[in-house]
Amino acid sequence: MADWLAALDRRAELRAKAGLTRTLRPRSAGDAVVDLAGNDYLGLSTHPDVTAAAVAAVRAYGLGATGSRLVRGSTDAHHALEDDLADWLGTDRALVFSSGYLANLGAVRALVQPRTLLVSDAHNHASLIDGCRISGAETVVTPHADVAAVRAALAAAPGRPAVVVTESVFSVDGDLAPLAELHAVTRGHGALLLVDDAHALGVTGPGGAGGVAAAGLAGEPDVIVTATLSKALGGAGGVVAGPAEFVRHLVETGRTFIFDTALPPAVAAGVRAAVGLARAGDDLRAELAERAGLAVRRLRAAGLTVSTPDAAVVSITAPGPETATTWAADCRDRGVAVGCFRPPSTPDSRSRLRLTLSAGVPRADFERALEVIVECAP
Amino acid sequence: MADWLAALDRRAELRAKAGLTRTLRPRSAGDAVVDLAGNDYLGLSTHPDVTAAAVAAVRAYGLGATGSRLVRGSTDAHHALEDDLADWLGTDRALVFSSGYLANLGAVRALVQPRTLLVSDAHNHASLIDGCRISGAETVVTPHADVAAVRAALAAAPGRPAVVVTESVFSVDGDLAPLAELHAVTRGHGALLLVDDAHALGVTGPGGAGGVAAAGLAGEPDVIVTATLSKALGGAGGVVAGPAEFVRHLVETGRTFIFDTALPPAVAAGVRAAVGLARAGDDLRAELAERAGLAVRRLRAAGLTVSTPDAAVVSITAPGPETATTWAADCRDRGVAVGCFRPPSTPDSRSRLRLTLSAGVPRADFERALEVIVECAP
Ligand SMILES: Cc1ncc(COP(=O)(O)O)c(C=O)c1O
Ligand SMILES: Cc1ncc(COP(=O)(O)O)c(C=O)c1O
Repeated sequence: MADWLAALDRRAELRAKAGLTRTLRPRSAGDAVVDLAGNDYLGLSTHPDVTAAAVAAVRAYGLGATGSRLVRGSTDAHHALEDDLADWLGTDRALVFSSGYLANLGAVRALVQPRTLLVSDAHNHASLIDGCRISGAETVVTPHADVAAVRAALAAAPGRPAVVVTESVFSVDGDLAPLAELHAVTRGHGALLLVDDAHALGVTGPGGAGGVAAAGLAGEPDVIVTATLSKALGGAGGVVAGPAEFVRHLVETGRTFIFDTALPPAVAAGVRAAVGLARAGDDLRAELAERAGLAVRRLRAAGLTVSTPDAAVVSITAPGPETATTWAADCRDRGVAVGCFRPPSTPDSRSRLRLTLSAGVPRADFERALEVIVECAP
Repeated sequence: MADWLAALDRRAELRAKAGLTRTLRPRSAGDAVVDLAGNDYLGLSTHPDVTAAAVAAVRAYGLGATGSRLVRGSTDAHHALEDDLADWLGTDRALVFSSGYLANLGAVRALVQPRTLLVSDAHNHASLIDGCRISGAETVVTPHADVAAVRAALAAAPGRPAVVVTESVFSVDGDLAPLAELHAVTRGHGALLLVDDAHALGVTGPGGAGGVAAAGLAGEPDVIVTATLSKALGGAGGVVAGPAEFVRHLVETGRTFIFDTALPPAVAAGVRAAVGLARAGDDLRAELAERAGLAVRRLRAAGLTVSTPDAAVVSITAPGPETATTWAADCRDRGVAVGCFRPPSTPDSRSRLRLTLSAGVPRADFERALEVIVECAP
């Protein structure tokens, strides 16, 4: 016992020495921080239509869903949201989960049959990696965004069912996966393509319908889309969208769907309002694109190494984990929240600052924040 | 492709033939159904203090948390809830997750070191089973509530770190695990005890502090408690409670904590109000205990085979999966929602109706519902 806790303490000390301590810092409602770290891309989490829909639903349904989706947890609010999501994404059906994490665990697992090979991009999110792991299927990790490597992995498994697992806009560096090329490869092999559209939904594609729609793959019967409802949609929860047969399969056999309490109805109602706003939000997307260009120009002019953003995630290389931490802390001290990615939570050995742009941040604050980032640079 | 969807269809047909089709049935706000299937044990999901706290927090913070707990997702509402939960459960610290499912995945995994043996009760919830699976550790499944089998499993692994994983009140049959005996065994071996208090929190124990507290194990350094905030607390989310060292370990390394969007602040605020009401809810717990006694007497008098409930879950044996489905459907047609458990989602081959009692259901409705269940019995 004492041993156990002492061992945890020793591991915490090792992390501290490596500059890898993580600390929870609660924020208050309406703090004055300029937020370039959250994922509220369109500023919808505080949109009056979204909060009004949530408030009305809390009053109508109460707080929790009171049960799993198959017991008492499915409300009209969930079904209306699912219909709207399917319509928006251009898929047969959409199924709402309580989080994007559980949606990914459920989707990957439900795609696996005996002998299935999973082919997973090296930059994939933890929830996709865990989905591969929990499925028990053989998994080949291919180098990031490497279509040839995916083709080779599939070619090495002739006659086996296979699923290629990727994000659309990657959360690490904000770059877009070569979705059309990947689909050509999976289609050629008879494999399936699972795309996590978390950072693209609402931000890219026609009417903000995401990376899969932007690549012209919406509704393809061999493509499954997952996403979180917590980023551009400003709420919480996850979705898996695809053919009706697959959604039925998830409803009847998906453990993370069946054995989990449903998303609170008020969150479903608020997110549904956000879907409407996101679909109509071409102005917000234009603003985001303009800010992404502005950020890249300003930061590169200051001599920083900056990714070329395909959506609203901008990644800045930091010299090392300690400098990244100090850099982010200095920005925070000056009222600017930026993300800080260090190993082991980066897929390579590089440390980064990560900016997530939000149309909800006043333009002047955003421009000031860029100056703060430049001034605090190591 | 076509193959893929056709194969899913064939599997759906096989499930249909076996009476295992599952259908989503959305409910409307305030439907007239008498709910003996949900998990709103104390009726708090619609308590005016709970909904008022949630509404105020939606207005103050917006809908979503906008990021993971370590980025922008931690708010004052989360930290206040964690302090109150730790105080209630009598543990050093408590950490809130976005669901009980992800809390369990994170907790089991974080307890596993190289060579750890997991000993898991045969009736454990899917999220605990998946936690064992995703951890990659060797797992021995012991017969339900069998202390001797647990002792034997530990004795067969001398010198190895070990964790015994159990629920307190089991969701399947509503019976209580022999927690004190299990703890004596784990303590003797130097193993850890992980208890999922989902169906006991708010319902049993001093001030409703749950099964671990009821067994006198609150705050023991070798006991970890998990729970969902979606049952007696009427909200959503999960919690892991235990020694500060372990909570720090989860914050710094727990994948389902780090890489997941935080619970919406409004849900945290609503659940915090529910914690206050649950602690003060001895009257609600007395009412639940009385109803459990009433249900058992009435159903047994009608010749039904009924579990002896240790909390608010009552399990009635059904002759088979089809009869269970018909029985539950007949009750539903007469305005009474009851749970229906059939293989493969039961740990044995038995089918059951499952009643979850709620102090929020008017007493007269509850008594009428018992008559409906008896009248619909096969
Ligand atoms: C790419 C990606 N997938 C999945 C998730 C998980 O979604 P959620 O936060 O709703 O669990 C996230 C972020 O949290 C993400 O960035
Ligand atoms: C015993 C038990 N553990 C964990 C969970 C999962 O909690 P959540 O619904 O918050 O994911 C549930 C029910 O859903 C449960 O019954």
